[in-house]
Amino acid sequence: MTDPTAYVRLETRFARLGTLHEAMAVLHWDSAAMMPSGGAEARGEQLAQLSLMAHELLTDPAVADWLEQAEAEADELDDWRRANLREMRRAHTHATALPARLVEALRRATHACEGLWREARPANDFARVKPALQKVLDLSREAGELKSAALGKSLYDALLDQYEPDGSSARIAQVFDTLARDLPELLGAVLERQAQQPDPVMPAGPFPVETQARLAHRLMEAVGFDFRHGRLDTSAHPFTGGVPDDVRLTTRYDETDFVTGLMGVLHETGHALYERGLPRQWRRQPVGDARGMSIHESQSLLIEMQACRSREFVGFLAPLAQSTFGGSGPEWEADNLARIYTRVEPDFIRVDADEVSYPAHVILRFRLEKALIEGDLTLDELPGAWAEQLQALLGIAPPDDRRGCLQDIHWYDGAWGYFPTYTLGAMTAAQLFAAACDAHPEIPAQLGQGDFSTLLGWLRRHVHEQGSRFSSEELLVRATGKPLDPTIFEAHLRRRYLEEA
Amino acid sequence: MTDPTAYVRLETRFARLGTLHEAMAVLHWDSAAMMPSGGAEARGEQLAQLSLMAHELLTDPAVADWLEQAEAEADELDDWRRANLREMRRAHTHATALPARLVEALRRATHACEGLWREARPANDFARVKPALQKVLDLSREAGELKSAALGKSLYDALLDQYEPDGSSARIAQVFDTLARDLPELLGAVLERQAQQPDPVMPAGPFPVETQARLAHRLMEAVGFDFRHGRLDTSAHPFTGGVPDDVRLTTRYDETDFVTGLMGVLHETGHALYERGLPRQWRRQPVGDARGMSIHESQSLLIEMQACRSREFVGFLAPLAQSTFGGSGPEWEADNLARIYTRVEPDFIRVDADEVSYPAHVILRFRLEKALIEGDLTLDELPGAWAEQLQALLGIAPPDDRRGCLQDIHWYDGAWGYFPTYTLGAMTAAQLFAAACDAHPEIPAQLGQGDFSTLLGWLRRHVHEQGSRFSSEELLVRATGKPLDPTIFEAHLRRRYLEEA
Repeated sequence: MTDPTAYVRLETRFARLGTLHEAMAVLHWDSAAMMPSGGAEARGEQLAQLSLMAHELLTDPAVADWLEQAEAEADELDDWRRANLREMRRAHTHATALPARLVEALRRATHACEGLWREARPANDFARVKPALQKVLDLSREAGELKSAALGKSLYDALLDQYEPDGSSARIAQVFDTLARDLPELLGAVLERQAQQPDPVMPAGPFPVETQARLAHRLMEAVGFDFRHGRLDTSAHPFTGGVPDDVRLTTRYDETDFVTGLMGVLHETGHALYERGLPRQWRRQPVGDARGMSIHESQSLLIEMQACRSREFVGFLAPLAQSTFGGSGPEWEADNLARIYTRVEPDFIRVDADEVSYPAHVILRFRLEKALIEGDLTLDELPGAWAEQLQALLGIAPPDDRRGCLQDIHWYDGAWGYFPTYTLGAMTAAQLFAAACDAHPEIPAQLGQGDFSTLLGWLRRHVHEQGSRFSSEELLVRATGKPLDPTIFEAHLRRRYLEEA
Repeated sequence: MTDPTAYVRLETRFARLGTLHEAMAVLHWDSAAMMPSGGAEARGEQLAQLSLMAHELLTDPAVADWLEQAEAEADELDDWRRANLREMRRAHTHATALPARLVEALRRATHACEGLWREARPANDFARVKPALQKVLDLSREAGELKSAALGKSLYDALLDQYEPDGSSARIAQVFDTLARDLPELLGAVLERQAQQPDPVMPAGPFPVETQARLAHRLMEAVGFDFRHGRLDTSAHPFTGGVPDDVRLTTRYDETDFVTGLMGVLHETGHALYERGLPRQWRRQPVGDARGMSIHESQSLLIEMQACRSREFVGFLAPLAQSTFGGSGPEWEADNLARIYTRVEPDFIRVDADEVSYPAHVILRFRLEKALIEGDLTLDELPGAWAEQLQALLGIAPPDDRRGCLQDIHWYDGAWGYFPTYTLGAMTAAQLFAAACDAHPEIPAQLGQGDFSTLLGWLRRHVHEQGSRFSSEELLVRATGKPLDPTIFEAHLRRRYLEEA
């Protein structure tokens, strides 16, 4: 028997690492969905210890040696293994780029800042959290500079790489600029047209939790969720967790409104289908992981925005909802539900935004966080810059910081470079859905029957089963024939909201 | 700053090990209570990998060095730390006694044997599983011999030590022989007296699961279970899992019978209170763990058998059950429920046995497994020896192997030395309960009010908070003033079943 190659040693090491991450994912889910409050301290210990063990496994000096050796022999590997090696290197570079001192300082700073933010937001008091945010920003920039050197990328792109591997802020700026240029006119036209139509009417509750859960299960199964490999539970903040072979979704129920929560469940189902469809033979290896946040968000938005808010699917949903809740009256008709699900109302809060105005919130944040990280904007200037950008993009300015730069947790939590993935995901979703419908023109009619099999089959082959084999851009080119094209997303909006052909 | 001592290094290492065990406990609970079937394979990987990492942490050569060094300096440690060191040594000795080859051979042999047993039992076909059981027995004996050498104990006592640390089969034989001598006459008297009394009547259902769960929660809270630090869920096989600060109980509900399941919940609550009451300052250290299986079983049996099947507690339970289920009629009266809960019916199956005949099943198994391990009995002779023992102890002989030596999983799963802990637990429970009532004569009357606070306070101080500081025997001497005394258990039986003073 010959010695295992360096590559084989790496696979063994990363399998162990992947298993630790799986265990942590289940414990995280349990914390949110099952754990009584008194279990929090012990759970914190468990997660901290497992996370430390994972860090030690990854930063072990032997791993650096194996990586170097395996890269020297990479010609002998097939393309999946070469991609796996590339992703191992990426994980190792991110983990070793920062000294333990900086990691710990960042942990403390974000913990403190997030705590202050939780007080400052309801109090509408940006000044209270500003010094803590400055500290987080300074340390994040320091981390970004070290990662920039380690990865050979620009400062912002090195931070972006944590969420969007091989993402490029130059490319993002390009597509975002196109959107920013076209959206104001589009939004105006949509609002004008919407004013001519009847106002949507919300069905009146109460809608018992059990009944909502039954409808949610029914729709998840229609979309393709397999309850032998996952669960739906409740938690304060809905999310998709667990592991690919056992995906744990959560939602929360509002007994006065089933309409909003239902789309939340379908959004998470999109995330869940992606996890579930990741390549089976690469479980617990980096190349078997989801590609990054923009592709992940594209899968949830494809299911929610492209498929489930389509007029076709709402035509399937409306009678089902009506019979499940025993509702009656015009507010239960598909046309009314469709109007609810495509209502456009520009406002200050990103998480409540509709599909048309959402990109404006993200473009604003991308531009501002890039300027903050690169030192072209100070925190003192932030509220003013925020108001100016929102005015230019949506024609409104926030009346206060609570509805402005205090609304999102991301920066206060040290997540710089995350925001653009939301709108990259929305554009990617539109482009993938258009390609799937080009290949299978029967898809929209099938959605009208609650049949997602053709769409899901296409996504499995072109996206899910590819894992992290390609960059997001390359994945998209292979699936749709072209790189990310913002005009496809714009065409989708024009079709849905202006009924242009 | 001076270097940490060897003892401090050991505490750090065992804290990590303890955290891994906590994570595994939560994953185990999830497997039984939450996991969909399709998650089993990934969960198996997670548990196997964490278990392997725990084994590596424990058998790391550095640990042997630290143990030696810390033992040489043990005079400098206080008594809790010395006890911790003793338990670290025990864990290390058990983990290093067996070569990896033997551990793996045992794993395979028990896995194969358990699978065959699952077929052989319903088929009543001992011959089918006998060769596999012989293999398990041979390997277990080999393991026992290695542990015997490592621990300086006899062959059987080395296996017993895995479940009952520092247990002695000579002492067990002594107390079991006393019981075996006295039980047949006692059982005869009980049956004779019972025949003079009215037959108990089971309340008729259905009893909806939600209502049963509500009553179970109410009673668990009365006993002292804190739902901020634990949960009650359902699983196929009821058990107590989780971690001391977040104890996870499970039960199963039978809609035709709430009576049986309720005592099951109270039994598990006894286990849970023990875990919850373990010394807070020694979390995730060996000395902070539960002492062993006999003390653990003593805590569940003390709550179930001593407290909750007492006439006083049934007097509290009966009206509560009646109002919860809206029942009416004489079958809901306390006297009838008490007759159900103390019904004596000698039979072939251990797990269905009543309190009076249960010890016979355990004494039989203890004698037979000791003889099998020590080579004084062959598997061919097992069915005959089983019948002979049961005849002598209970006056009945099993009509077939399904109701004889095929009924329990333990031996087929390689768990030799486990059985005696059940009856050691029952006797310990009687002795602890008697001591608690001697110290606080108001306890029985309090139980009649659903007030467990005095009893629980006594158990916290004398048992739970002692963790693994003492051996079971020493714990009992400190708590009750004397070593295990089977006549206290017998006196309890005479009081309850013969109404002797």
